[in-house]
Amino acid sequence: MNGAESLVATLVRGGVEVCFANPGTSEMHFVAALDRVPGMRCVLGLFEGVVTGAADGYARMADKPAATLLHLGPGLSNGSANIHNARRALSSMINIVGDHATYHRACDAPLTSDIEGLARPVSHWVKTSPSAKTVAQDGADAIAVARRPPGQIATLILPADTAWEEADGLGKVPEVKPPAPVSDAAIDEAARILRSGEPTVLLMTGQALRDPALFQAGRIAAACSARLVAQTSNGRWERGRGRVNPEHLPYPVDEALRSLAEVSHVILVGAKSPVAFFAYPGKPSQLISEDCQVHQLARADEDITGALTELANLLKAPPQPVIEQRTEAPGLGRGDFGVENLSRTIATLLPEQAIVVDEALTSGRMMLGLTRGSAPHDWLQICGGAIGIGMPLAAGAAVACPDRRVVGLQADGSAMYTVQGLWTQARENLNVTTVVFANRSYQCLHTELAAVRAGTPGTLALDMLNLDRPDLDWVQLAAGMGVPGMAVDDMDAFNGVFADALTHRGPFLIQVNI
Amino acid sequence: MNGAESLVATLVRGGVEVCFANPGTSEMHFVAALDRVPGMRCVLGLFEGVVTGAADGYARMADKPAATLLHLGPGLSNGSANIHNARRALSSMINIVGDHATYHRACDAPLTSDIEGLARPVSHWVKTSPSAKTVAQDGADAIAVARRPPGQIATLILPADTAWEEADGLGKVPEVKPPAPVSDAAIDEAARILRSGEPTVLLMTGQALRDPALFQAGRIAAACSARLVAQTSNGRWERGRGRVNPEHLPYPVDEALRSLAEVSHVILVGAKSPVAFFAYPGKPSQLISEDCQVHQLARADEDITGALTELANLLKAPPQPVIEQRTEAPGLGRGDFGVENLSRTIATLLPEQAIVVDEALTSGRMMLGLTRGSAPHDWLQICGGAIGIGMPLAAGAAVACPDRRVVGLQADGSAMYTVQGLWTQARENLNVTTVVFANRSYQCLHTELAAVRAGTPGTLALDMLNLDRPDLDWVQLAAGMGVPGMAVDDMDAFNGVFADALTHRGPFLIQVNI
Repeated sequence: MNGAESLVATLVRGGVEVCFANPGTSEMHFVAALDRVPGMRCVLGLFEGVVTGAADGYARMADKPAATLLHLGPGLSNGSANIHNARRALSSMINIVGDHATYHRACDAPLTSDIEGLARPVSHWVKTSPSAKTVAQDGADAIAVARRPPGQIATLILPADTAWEEADGLGKVPEVKPPAPVSDAAIDEAARILRSGEPTVLLMTGQALRDPALFQAGRIAAACSARLVAQTSNGRWERGRGRVNPEHLPYPVDEALRSLAEVSHVILVGAKSPVAFFAYPGKPSQLISEDCQVHQLARADEDITGALTELANLLKAPPQPVIEQRTEAPGLGRGDFGVENLSRTIATLLPEQAIVVDEALTSGRMMLGLTRGSAPHDWLQICGGAIGIGMPLAAGAAVACPDRRVVGLQADGSAMYTVQGLWTQARENLNVTTVVFANRSYQCLHTELAAVRAGTPGTLALDMLNLDRPDLDWVQLAAGMGVPGMAVDDMDAFNGVFADALTHRGPFLIQVNI
Repeated sequence: MNGAESLVATLVRGGVEVCFANPGTSEMHFVAALDRVPGMRCVLGLFEGVVTGAADGYARMADKPAATLLHLGPGLSNGSANIHNARRALSSMINIVGDHATYHRACDAPLTSDIEGLARPVSHWVKTSPSAKTVAQDGADAIAVARRPPGQIATLILPADTAWEEADGLGKVPEVKPPAPVSDAAIDEAARILRSGEPTVLLMTGQALRDPALFQAGRIAAACSARLVAQTSNGRWERGRGRVNPEHLPYPVDEALRSLAEVSHVILVGAKSPVAFFAYPGKPSQLISEDCQVHQLARADEDITGALTELANLLKAPPQPVIEQRTEAPGLGRGDFGVENLSRTIATLLPEQAIVVDEALTSGRMMLGLTRGSAPHDWLQICGGAIGIGMPLAAGAAVACPDRRVVGLQADGSAMYTVQGLWTQARENLNVTTVVFANRSYQCLHTELAAVRAGTPGTLALDMLNLDRPDLDWVQLAAGMGVPGMAVDDMDAFNGVFADALTHRGPFLIQVNI
């Protein structure tokens, strides 16, 4: 058994069953080991941003890490933006980055670079395995780090000779530890605030947005006047009909400020104190008013559901939350071909247990409101602001949940970043229905340009914001990667094509020319 | 004048005339400044790997840096692989990376990351500008660093408030310093070796592969028995009919070892002592034999042409080099539709002053030999081994040289990495003719898998090397981004289509199904 085989076997024993990969020469022994060690599904991405974005999508839905297989420093760099997003989504990931053989590094061959240096800013743990004897245990340690609540990024650098030399058996796979309980003091303080009757928000993310925690938060809301608010960006949010559906803290800073203006207390439930996504001249970075007090019920790595349950019981909350009785979706959009009507149709037709991957940015902002009454679904957002996550995230979610429909809501500018994700969707025949909102611009930047008060944009500036010369033809792009698609220009067509696409086996892309 | 305007004006004053950009919110003031400060051409890329690869291509052909405009840590990461390639190509580049406003960084907003940490492994110089007053001088310093011979990577991080606050005038733009002369001792030593008559190689890269230096190296070769050998990968190599055409050190390690086996002395002319690209079990990392001595005539940052001239004179070399009298290209390929015949046609039809961007990898290995007699041309290679450079590099070279034809020789696997480069070629209507060698696999990895002795690949391993499920349709991909194209399956068709494409205004893509 060589080092690569000992590593693959350790990963499989540790419950890592999927590897998203874009390998090169230095990873060839790892690749060869896949056929010798049973139990690992390997999914190829034609660009590393697809690989890491898919691993994130998988982890969000499987609640455990996938491995990625990346080729030296540049391979890691190419995947780095979506590792950043995964870190912000509190996702779990194990990156295996091949490197030159240990003795070859000093040669400074063309592909040599400071891989550890590149890895550190996006990883909770980085290690270069020194020998084939240590690779397996290093892999086991990486699993332990990655599975530490709420989910962490572990990056293991694998010099080629540590893969091909003789190993020393498997690594000792750690037990998965449950999240630590919250202190009584934190629960008591939250109870005191909530009993005070002062305007209070429970700001929630992570496990707080899963059904069991939402249920308890709903009991709390039923016992007092507190508002339940989900953070602006969340890794995974269980929503829809029959569930407790918190409000959503809006992205635009003025709206967010208005939403929190009258709040005296923010109780953090997995979240951090809310800040603006960007700074804007003359606007605050903090989204709460100066006299608002911030309290922490539970950190993201603590037992959020347990804390909410204890808090609800302490407040003598009713056994059931008040569930919004909105049993109907808004109905199909008719008439004007625009974001609002498209959102209505999507909200109405969203299938039971759909997984919505939301990288629609400006086009998606009214979607959250309209889908509160949709069939129960999961909503996955871009959490680190690094656009180019949607198509890979959708692929990874579909690998984790082959029996559920994935619906990708995709801005066109963002989709171009990791367009190669469509090929992986086709190769794995994943049930992903993608709607590309083709507004032919970085629409958000038009808004942002005004928000940062950069003045009226001139011709050159507008050229940097518009994608309309030439127009992107998404149906041809998708077809080029084996994904069928259709472009639509009116609501009647969209209503029909979207309904059909939701039952299509394998990926399908709809370009909406808004 | 705000910080952004002071920076753009300083860049323009310092001869930086092109900015390849993919901006976001934090770069909006820089973008707005483009319309207020004349003299900067701004070229949009739909992914940062396009932006940095194009800046590299521009620098190689313009012999001066372009700026890039990137959006925080993830934007830099996305461009990092091609910055790595540029660094290995001895290219010059000024990266402007927007960051959050200085006071906003402590908020740890979603896009916050350690940008300096991400920048250091790929940059010679990294600085975060502390205020709007310093931005202009920091920009001037970045120019100085980037233009230091042979070309360096300068990364300037621009917090948003340093762009929008009031500036203090322009930065003092440095004079461009010529490369330092080589010591007499180095020239004397080289002369001594060459006079000894022992088997000697001049290993050349950088400025050594430009016409004036080649001319002098050719004089030296005419005066003694030394072989002229170009390094395996070179940023820019002036070649073809009427020029001194060195041999090429092959990529495959066994071939390289054979090429250098009988050599007693290697004299480095801008190059480093030759090493294998990867390590392979049982094979050496160093490509020279143990008793071969390595001497340095000139470092990459020294006056290579001057050193070769002095050396030639010291050796009393004839005033003219011996120029290989191969006035004809090999003739159009006929018959079998494969790499050899395609290479013949390309070598034969290559137009005068063409710029060849070579990311053909396995498909391109016989191209260098066949083009020795082609019309004079420049050959640009991938120097850092980070695939995904070709289409961006071609775009940047075409921006630098609008009157010359760019011919992209492109492997399909590599092309997918930065396929968005086609859109920039279309938008700027660049005269780029791309030939995609569609072998539907990471063909090089099949070879590498054997070379690293990873055993016979099984089904899963082969799946990671083959791109044939589904096949990529390059004509549709190109059309989706506004680039016309055609797929060909026989030599007659290719001979006609390639000839036509070379006179086509704007980009054109030919998919060859080999």
